[in-house]
Amino acid sequence: MTNDFPSSEDLKKAEEYVRRYAHYTPILSSSQINEKLGCSVLFKSEHLQKTGSFKARGALNALMGLMEGEVPKGVVTHSSGNHGQALAWAAELLGVKAVVVVPKNAPSVKVEAIRAYGAEVFFCEPSLESREENCNRIRNERGFVVIPPFDDYRIIAGQSTMMQEVLEQEKDIDCAVIPVGGGGLFSGSLLAVADKRNTIIMYGAEPSASGDAIESFVTGVRVTKAGTQTIADGLRTALGVRNFDVISKHAEGILPASEENIKLALAWIYLYLKQAVEPSAAVSLAAIIENADLFKGKKVVSILCGGNLDLKSLPF
Amino acid sequence: MTNDFPSSEDLKKAEEYVRRYAHYTPILSSSQINEKLGCSVLFKSEHLQKTGSFKARGALNALMGLMEGEVPKGVVTHSSGNHGQALAWAAELLGVKAVVVVPKNAPSVKVEAIRAYGAEVFFCEPSLESREENCNRIRNERGFVVIPPFDDYRIIAGQSTMMQEVLEQEKDIDCAVIPVGGGGLFSGSLLAVADKRNTIIMYGAEPSASGDAIESFVTGVRVTKAGTQTIADGLRTALGVRNFDVISKHAEGILPASEENIKLALAWIYLYLKQAVEPSAAVSLAAIIENADLFKGKKVVSILCGGNLDLKSLPF
Repeated sequence: MTNDFPSSEDLKKAEEYVRRYAHYTPILSSSQINEKLGCSVLFKSEHLQKTGSFKARGALNALMGLMEGEVPKGVVTHSSGNHGQALAWAAELLGVKAVVVVPKNAPSVKVEAIRAYGAEVFFCEPSLESREENCNRIRNERGFVVIPPFDDYRIIAGQSTMMQEVLEQEKDIDCAVIPVGGGGLFSGSLLAVADKRNTIIMYGAEPSASGDAIESFVTGVRVTKAGTQTIADGLRTALGVRNFDVISKHAEGILPASEENIKLALAWIYLYLKQAVEPSAAVSLAAIIENADLFKGKKVVSILCGGNLDLKSLPF
Repeated sequence: MTNDFPSSEDLKKAEEYVRRYAHYTPILSSSQINEKLGCSVLFKSEHLQKTGSFKARGALNALMGLMEGEVPKGVVTHSSGNHGQALAWAAELLGVKAVVVVPKNAPSVKVEAIRAYGAEVFFCEPSLESREENCNRIRNERGFVVIPPFDDYRIIAGQSTMMQEVLEQEKDIDCAVIPVGGGGLFSGSLLAVADKRNTIIMYGAEPSASGDAIESFVTGVRVTKAGTQTIADGLRTALGVRNFDVISKHAEGILPASEENIKLALAWIYLYLKQAVEPSAAVSLAAIIENADLFKGKKVVSILCGGNLDLKSLPF
């Protein structure tokens, strides 16, 4: 286990950086959902964040930290999803060149979104090897800096700003349920709560069909392959090394969510909150539904982590 | 043409009543939509209103006005949609008994929503005749007061409070585009703007497939039958008498929206605003898309009028 987790100072700095350019997102609630579950659910609305997901926070923090030193020639990452858009946005905002390596089977709507933020898209084969190889090649050839999607302390500190905001926005929170893919948001949220010595009970939430984080947490050995048979496409990712370290130290547990409950939670979010989110954003509520006894009478934070929707993939 | 339009005093009173119990709804915007259209669109978010539509305003105002006199034994209306929910909610809030006459082929989800607010549901044949007949019968048998959905000055004054809020929330508005079904919201909005002697250019928006209001406005003779072949099911209604009078006097015009543009607008609202609204709520934006030349460089108010969604009916 590493000992160089982001410090209290790092989290404070991230909060200053992120507040400068990102949205302070609202918390929504629905009396209908609260009645159904017998608890009070607070939905932190990161689908309304810049670029449509919390990923804007981490990308911005990483890039602003870099800019404090020598301005980089450019930045590069690999992503088929929200991190690519987030880095493209942050780079355009700060006037830095960006390349996003994208698997050639990625949906064209995501590719267009990355290009709309002015980044160069580089297509590769749809495998993690090809993605990393091309990313590293561009780094070496062009002297660009790699900004990874989650396994990076600057990213983790950036994502911590979401939970820092929640702690300002709401008092007397009992628990929070944070979606887990690579673990950037969950590890950042854990550090934010630990830094304030707050006693909120912190759970992760993961699709059962991609249960590597649950297995890693329970066995203490990081599983490096994630299942892909979940509608929550943003969470088809194995835990990062640094993320696993933080989670092992600070999490209460990681709760499973069945595909059935993810679809039910997604319907509730559309019908009762009237918010159009991507399926991954329903996993936190799905885990609350699936483990409702844990939360009876409690005040629970749930995360609408993203809203970058492929309309054709809606399961209704 | 009648001369007893709601007075300035009536509108002020409605604003006081409605503010007491309804939401002051936010205005949303999307830089992506603005870029596509070359204008600045402000979306008044009535899908986030109590009961999921602006109808809560009119029902509340009508009922609170009634309560100032003798408390009624009960209230009755006919509705297969948002007005039924709105009246049921307002009646429960103020402790009055409510009956909603519902065509027997209405979606069960709407019937459940009306019942969830504590109202009694009375099923009738799916025709306007049967709806009105049963509504009047219940009035006569039980001594209840009828609260009509739109052709009523108390309702019109209540709906005016939406535009009253918009005028407080935003300055320098050039135009507004208000969806038209029975015309309650549009006539109320027109009176709100006229009362403030504001120079905002006021358009209605109507599905071409249900173009009775456009024909009525152009010919000066109220058409009493509306087309039903539109996805915007909330607007399959012919203009009311009082609504037609107000619209004839104060509107700049009524803009058509094709089914294709309604679907496109709906997709933009989901993708860029990330709001889950019902199809009728896309008609205002669809009319802006269809008549984009009118709005170049302008600041335009568009209305997300409701969010009571049948997930199965989404056209994606």
